[in-house]
Amino acid sequence: MKPLILITNDDGYDAKGIGVLTRVARQFGDVVVMAPSCNASGLAHSFTSARPLRVRCINEEPGCVVYACDGTPVDCVKVAVEHFCHQRPQLLLSGINHGSNASINVLYSGTMGAVIEAAVMGIDAIGFSILDHSADADFEPSVPWIRTIIADVLDNGLPDEVSLNVNFPIPADGVIKGMKLCRQSHARWADSYEKRIDPQGRPYFWLTGRFECDDKNEGTDQWALENGFVSIVPIKADHTDFQSLDTLEKRFR
Amino acid sequence: MKPLILITNDDGYDAKGIGVLTRVARQFGDVVVMAPSCNASGLAHSFTSARPLRVRCINEEPGCVVYACDGTPVDCVKVAVEHFCHQRPQLLLSGINHGSNASINVLYSGTMGAVIEAAVMGIDAIGFSILDHSADADFEPSVPWIRTIIADVLDNGLPDEVSLNVNFPIPADGVIKGMKLCRQSHARWADSYEKRIDPQGRPYFWLTGRFECDDKNEGTDQWALENGFVSIVPIKADHTDFQSLDTLEKRFR
Repeated sequence: MKPLILITNDDGYDAKGIGVLTRVARQFGDVVVMAPSCNASGLAHSFTSARPLRVRCINEEPGCVVYACDGTPVDCVKVAVEHFCHQRPQLLLSGINHGSNASINVLYSGTMGAVIEAAVMGIDAIGFSILDHSADADFEPSVPWIRTIIADVLDNGLPDEVSLNVNFPIPADGVIKGMKLCRQSHARWADSYEKRIDPQGRPYFWLTGRFECDDKNEGTDQWALENGFVSIVPIKADHTDFQSLDTLEKRFR
Repeated sequence: MKPLILITNDDGYDAKGIGVLTRVARQFGDVVVMAPSCNASGLAHSFTSARPLRVRCINEEPGCVVYACDGTPVDCVKVAVEHFCHQRPQLLLSGINHGSNASINVLYSGTMGAVIEAAVMGIDAIGFSILDHSADADFEPSVPWIRTIIADVLDNGLPDEVSLNVNFPIPADGVIKGMKLCRQSHARWADSYEKRIDPQGRPYFWLTGRFECDDKNEGTDQWALENGFVSIVPIKADHTDFQSLDTLEKRFR
């Protein structure tokens, strides 16, 4: 039996990146795409329970069905697995995201929210992102690496509840040097809200942001990406800081 | 100078829980409340950038100003720190949430999204939740524990980028036995979507969920809560699974 691969993203079902990912995934098995009906960037691990979800079939052909859902990326994974997959998916792929999900971006990313959700459900899951926000980003240099990573995970699986956050660099010379398994760089968005005044004289606040990262030692995803390597960070759903369990235990008992 | 304490939640500025938390926090310093203008549960770490935010002043008195914001809990933290705090907050408190944020719920929780965001910004942060979803939940048994935890964190701080996820049990005998520093229980929501048909004959899918947890050893937050203890889990923003870095490194290079 062919493996079933479920695909989602947070840029919407009609983004270029998910089209490329679907094309690659079809070489490995049957594909169900369930992706947000419009842009759902920055929705992180949010899900919808106060209202129902609607699902629309966009295209159906042998081995590949594409649906759009009016929920979040996490919703897409949940509803697809229960109602739109003819067998349990062996793999969840998310992306290819237009823009970086390396470092601290994993916290905010709907692409990675879907990945972590699948991992919690016991499905091997990989998020792919490219360091180019533009709608017509060139995904072709990343395709051979995506193929290699998918083949490895289909063959060998991933540790329990562990998923992969894969980001592709845009090297100046166009050549990706290799892959690096990395830790997540510590960083932050130095956010600033532009305060503006509307035509009625009332203020509103619009987010602008600047990525700040001082943690670029070898071994981090930011180092890998800035040096022309694909970064692969193993991600876990357990947020416990085990390092501080002992020191804090003395204070809280 | 009095410390400034910033408060948010995901149940909305007018929920009972945030009122209790504000009352307790005022014993320690000046308070700014910036909370969602309506229920924002399940929004996790999501933020708003496609549209601007609006902020409305609900109440202002010496030592305590309350604002409502039409964004997510993470938005509330970001915009409050930049535009609505007269000094940098020494502490961010989120809650008291109506309902558990223990175990896997930390992934979905807007309450905890705000906490993790503050920690990344370098502000000590604590999320408080009680295992009672009802709008009129009785928060009084938890108040002395909240006071103890706030006093400790104001005095001694928290490790860098580490925040606290605090949950309060509802013991059958009404007596909370003590506090336990815990790790996050591994669990999942066994979600199911009810498929219904609308008056026009079209299907829609509405989420229902059942919490499933087999990981209740001593040392987990679920164990603490089921045995009448306050659970305190130190939470980190770094999602790297360091355990699998070495084993996976051999596969991806």
